[in-house]
Amino acid sequence: MNLTAMGKAARAASMRLNTFGTAQKDAVLAAMADALLAHTDEILAANALDMASADENGVAKAMMDRLRLDEGRVASMAKGLRDVIALSDPTAEGEGSVTRPNGLIIAKRRVPLGVIGIIFEARPNVTADAIGLCVKSGNACILRGGKEAIHSNLAIAKVMNDAAVAAGYPEGGIQILSDTSRETAAEMMRLNGYIDVLIPRGGAGLIQSVVKNATVPVIETGVGVCHTFIDASADFDMALKIIINAKCSRPSVCNAMETLLIHKDIADEFLPLAFGELEKQNVELRCCEASLPYAKNGVAASAQDYYTEYNDYVLNVRVVEDLAAAISHIAEHSTRHSEAIVTKDYANAQSFLNMVDAAAVYVNASTRFTDGGEFGLGAEIGISTQKLHARGPMGLKELTTYKYVVYGDGQIR
Amino acid sequence: MNLTAMGKAARAASMRLNTFGTAQKDAVLAAMADALLAHTDEILAANALDMASADENGVAKAMMDRLRLDEGRVASMAKGLRDVIALSDPTAEGEGSVTRPNGLIIAKRRVPLGVIGIIFEARPNVTADAIGLCVKSGNACILRGGKEAIHSNLAIAKVMNDAAVAAGYPEGGIQILSDTSRETAAEMMRLNGYIDVLIPRGGAGLIQSVVKNATVPVIETGVGVCHTFIDASADFDMALKIIINAKCSRPSVCNAMETLLIHKDIADEFLPLAFGELEKQNVELRCCEASLPYAKNGVAASAQDYYTEYNDYVLNVRVVEDLAAAISHIAEHSTRHSEAIVTKDYANAQSFLNMVDAAAVYVNASTRFTDGGEFGLGAEIGISTQKLHARGPMGLKELTTYKYVVYGDGQIR
Repeated sequence: MNLTAMGKAARAASMRLNTFGTAQKDAVLAAMADALLAHTDEILAANALDMASADENGVAKAMMDRLRLDEGRVASMAKGLRDVIALSDPTAEGEGSVTRPNGLIIAKRRVPLGVIGIIFEARPNVTADAIGLCVKSGNACILRGGKEAIHSNLAIAKVMNDAAVAAGYPEGGIQILSDTSRETAAEMMRLNGYIDVLIPRGGAGLIQSVVKNATVPVIETGVGVCHTFIDASADFDMALKIIINAKCSRPSVCNAMETLLIHKDIADEFLPLAFGELEKQNVELRCCEASLPYAKNGVAASAQDYYTEYNDYVLNVRVVEDLAAAISHIAEHSTRHSEAIVTKDYANAQSFLNMVDAAAVYVNASTRFTDGGEFGLGAEIGISTQKLHARGPMGLKELTTYKYVVYGDGQIR
Repeated sequence: MNLTAMGKAARAASMRLNTFGTAQKDAVLAAMADALLAHTDEILAANALDMASADENGVAKAMMDRLRLDEGRVASMAKGLRDVIALSDPTAEGEGSVTRPNGLIIAKRRVPLGVIGIIFEARPNVTADAIGLCVKSGNACILRGGKEAIHSNLAIAKVMNDAAVAAGYPEGGIQILSDTSRETAAEMMRLNGYIDVLIPRGGAGLIQSVVKNATVPVIETGVGVCHTFIDASADFDMALKIIINAKCSRPSVCNAMETLLIHKDIADEFLPLAFGELEKQNVELRCCEASLPYAKNGVAASAQDYYTEYNDYVLNVRVVEDLAAAISHIAEHSTRHSEAIVTKDYANAQSFLNMVDAAAVYVNASTRFTDGGEFGLGAEIGISTQKLHARGPMGLKELTTYKYVVYGDGQIR
C-alpha cells in the first residue's frame, strides 16, 4: 500500500474516531491487551527473526537487550494497555464556553489531533505503547519503526489491529509501515494533509533528520544535554546524592545529567568528593582547565563535548564564576530538556527557575524525574524539547487539540 | 547585521524578558503608543516613499489602500497598543501544581514562547500590532515585512523600539529585517536555536513557502476555504442572511465563505432565492451541474475551484445528496479554518459539529465570526489552521508556552 493511500485510510478512520466514546475505546484497549497475551508465541517467533539478524549483523549487546522480547515483556506490554484504560480520557473534558453579547455560545472542545505519525527506533515495546496512547486519545496512527525490529513491530501491530477491528475500531485507524527504507520515511515526513503531527522518538540523528526534512508539523522529543549546577551554598551531601543519581542511575536516558557545573568558591573542597564518588562508578570525566587537576583519570573537555549527549558513563565538568555564568553556560549548551540547581540560597533558586529556559527546571532534585509517570501524567509518548504545543513529558492530553464549537441562532456580523 | 547576530541578540533579550513584570510591559506599551503619535510625521513621510514606489510599479488599488497610512491610521495603531495594555497578561497565570508522594512540588508555569519570528505581507499596521502583542506576552520578536511597505515598517519599528528601550525594554527585544530578499527570508525560516516559533501572515503562497522551507516550528495561519451547508430543514430567511454575510460582508478575509453547499431536497426552491440575492451583490457563481441552471450568469465550476480561496466576490456552489455528502465534501476541500451548517435538525447539527474537522465549526451563524475580537480574546496575531499548539484565533495566551518548575529538597529517583 502506498503512503498516500495509507494517509487517506487513516484520515477516514480519524473522522469516525471523533464519535468514538471512552467506553468503546477502553473496550478496544482491553481486547488488544488480551490479544497480545493470546498471541505471545507469534510475537516471540517474529522477535526471534529480528534477534537472529541482529546477531548476524553484530549488533551491540545493549541494543540486543532492548530488542529482545520474552513472555514477561509481552505481558508487560499488555499490562501497559490496561494501565492506559485507567487513565482519564482527555477528549471527555471541555475547556469552558462563553456566551457572547450577540448570543453566540462559543465552546472550546478538546478533540484528538487526528492522524499521528510516529517514527521510532529499535524497541518493539514502543509499538504497543504508542498504539495504546493513540487509541485512548482518539487518534489514528501511522507507525514507522526501525528495520532492526521490523518483524516484531509488524507482528505486534497486526495482533493489536486485528483485535481492535474485531472490537469495532475503524479499519485504517492503526497502521504500520512494512517498508523501513529512508525514502519512505522521508515521504512520510511530507505527508501534509494526511498526517497532522509527526513525533520522532529516538537518538539525536533521527530527531535532527525529522526536524530538517519534515513539512508536517513535528514535536521534537528527547535529546537531553542536562546540566546540574552546584551553587556555593549547596549542601554537599545532597549535591553528591543528586549528582550520582542524575548521572549513574540510568545513563542511557534523556533526563540523565551530561554536564556538572560547580561554583568556583567550592571547587577546591567539593570537586575531590564529587570526583571520588563518580570515579567509583567508573564515570569518565571530561574537565575544564580548573577542574582537571582534581580528576584522577580525567581528560580535557573539548568545546564540542559540552554540546554532546553521551547517554553513557561520561560527564563534562566545568567550574564557573557564579550563578550568572552557570545560567549563561546552560543557555548556550542546553537542549531545553531538564536543568537543575543545588543551592540553599533562596534568591539564587528563584533566579535559576526564572532565567533558565527548559521544559523542566529543578531546585535540589535530580533531573531524572522528568518523566510522565514521575510527573503524574500516567504513560507518556515522549518528552518534548520544543516550545510549541507541549513541553516536557507528553501524556494523553498532549495528544489532543481543541476546536471551537459555536452555537448560533442566525447571527451575522 | 546578519541574522545569526540578530538571533543571538533576540535570545539574550528573551532571557531578560523572563523577569519583566506586567507593570513594566504595560509601561513600555504606553511609551510606544505615545511615541507613535509623537512621530506621526516621520512615519507618514516613510509611508509616502512606499506609496510612491507602489504607484510607479502600478500596484493594484486595493493593495494601495492597504498600504496607505494617514494620521487616523497611525492614531489607531496607538489605540491598538492601549487596548493591549487592558488585556490580562497570560504569563501572570499559573496552571496549577501537584505535590508528588516523594514531596516534589511540580508547578506548571506559563512563560513566553521566547523569540517569535513573524513574516508578513503588505499592511504596515501589522508591524505595530505584532510588536504590541509580543511585548505584552513577554516575547522577543524578529519581524520580516514585505518590500512594498519596507519604509513604513522600518519607521514604525524604529519609533516603537526606541521608545521601548528608553522605557527599560532590553535591546534586541524588537527587531525588524531591513533586507526583504527571499534569501534572507529563507535563512530566517531555518534559524533554529534562535527563533522558537515562526508565524507567517499573508496569502496562500507565503504560507506554503514557509511550511515547505522552515525548519523552525511554524504556526500555519489564515488560509480559509470556508463552507456553509444549507440543510434540508434550514430556515430560508436565516440561510439567506447568513450566506450574504459570509460571502459579501468582507470577501477579502480568510473567514469569508468560498463554497456554498445545498441539500438536494431544497435546491429547487432555495437556489433561485439565494442566487437572486447573490447576483444583486454581483457575486460570480461557479456552479455544479445541478445548480448551474438556476444561475443567470453562472459558470461551471472546475474541480480545482472547490480548493480555491478567492478572497473576492466569487462563490462555488454545489448541490449535495445529504449531510454525509456535505461533510465528506468539506473533509476533502476544507483548509480546516471555519465551517458552518444552517439547519433546524438537532441530530444533524450535532453530527456536523462532531464530524467536521476545523478550528471553528458553526451551527446557524456566519463563518465571519472566527476572529480574536469576536471570540473575546482581545487582539489576535493571526488565525491558526493547524492543530499543533493553537487553533483558530491566536491571542496573547497562544503566544506563550509553559515550563515545569520543580521544588525539591534532595529527591533522587
